[in-house]
Amino acid sequence: MSRHSEVPVTSVEAHEPPYYVAVFTAVRTENQNDFSETNARMEDLVQGVAGFLGMDHAQTPGGLGITVSYFRDADALTAWRTNVEHRAAQERGRAEWYQSYTLHVAKVERSHGFLNGADEAP
Amino acid sequence: MSRHSEVPVTSVEAHEPPYYVAVFTAVRTENQNDFSETNARMEDLVQGVAGFLGMDHAQTPGGLGITVSYFRDADALTAWRTNVEHRAAQERGRAEWYQSYTLHVAKVERSHGFLNGADEAP
Repeated sequence: MSRHSEVPVTSVEAHEPPYYVAVFTAVRTENQNDFSETNARMEDLVQGVAGFLGMDHAQTPGGLGITVSYFRDADALTAWRTNVEHRAAQERGRAEWYQSYTLHVAKVERSHGFLNGADEAP
Repeated sequence: MSRHSEVPVTSVEAHEPPYYVAVFTAVRTENQNDFSETNARMEDLVQGVAGFLGMDHAQTPGGLGITVSYFRDADALTAWRTNVEHRAAQERGRAEWYQSYTLHVAKVERSHGFLNGADEAP
């Protein structure tokens, strides 16, 4: 999940397809003990996954959070999904931090960026 | 973009793959004249697209906004992408409302939901 408090706000750019997105939509519980620390650790950890391309995060206060992670290929996704420390964090998330979530893993077929009036293609 | 002010907060559920996601990440400008009205109109309009499955939205205040739209197939995506009123709104978005955005269109290969401790598969 991106450190969205930084300025300027940016998002992960369009890459050359194919690549993968993992779309994680979540509603959190009121118990957020250790969530921030664990989340920061996961942000650091995923950087070490070969083929990790970046992460976008948005959080509506009191509402839905969406985290989109980008990976070069299925192997990169598998490496992150099976990471032992990540799995432990997911387990704790289900037990404590998340009221509900949905994960959609998808292969990007096309992408497109726009910046300051100048169209961008990967 | 979902009406996230409603209670309870929910997100679009996992569907049976394959289906499509359109991931739209955006940073808005300070000029948001007519944005809310147009956005509400687009939310209504997309409901009429055959194969539209739903939409998730999260907005970090002063930061990134992420909208994820779900479609049954490529035809549904094309219908929405080529909708004349939608295209006009996109044009105005580039001219006025968006400082930057990225769109990733992807075919979902697997999905998974979690609710209140009970795993859910589509």
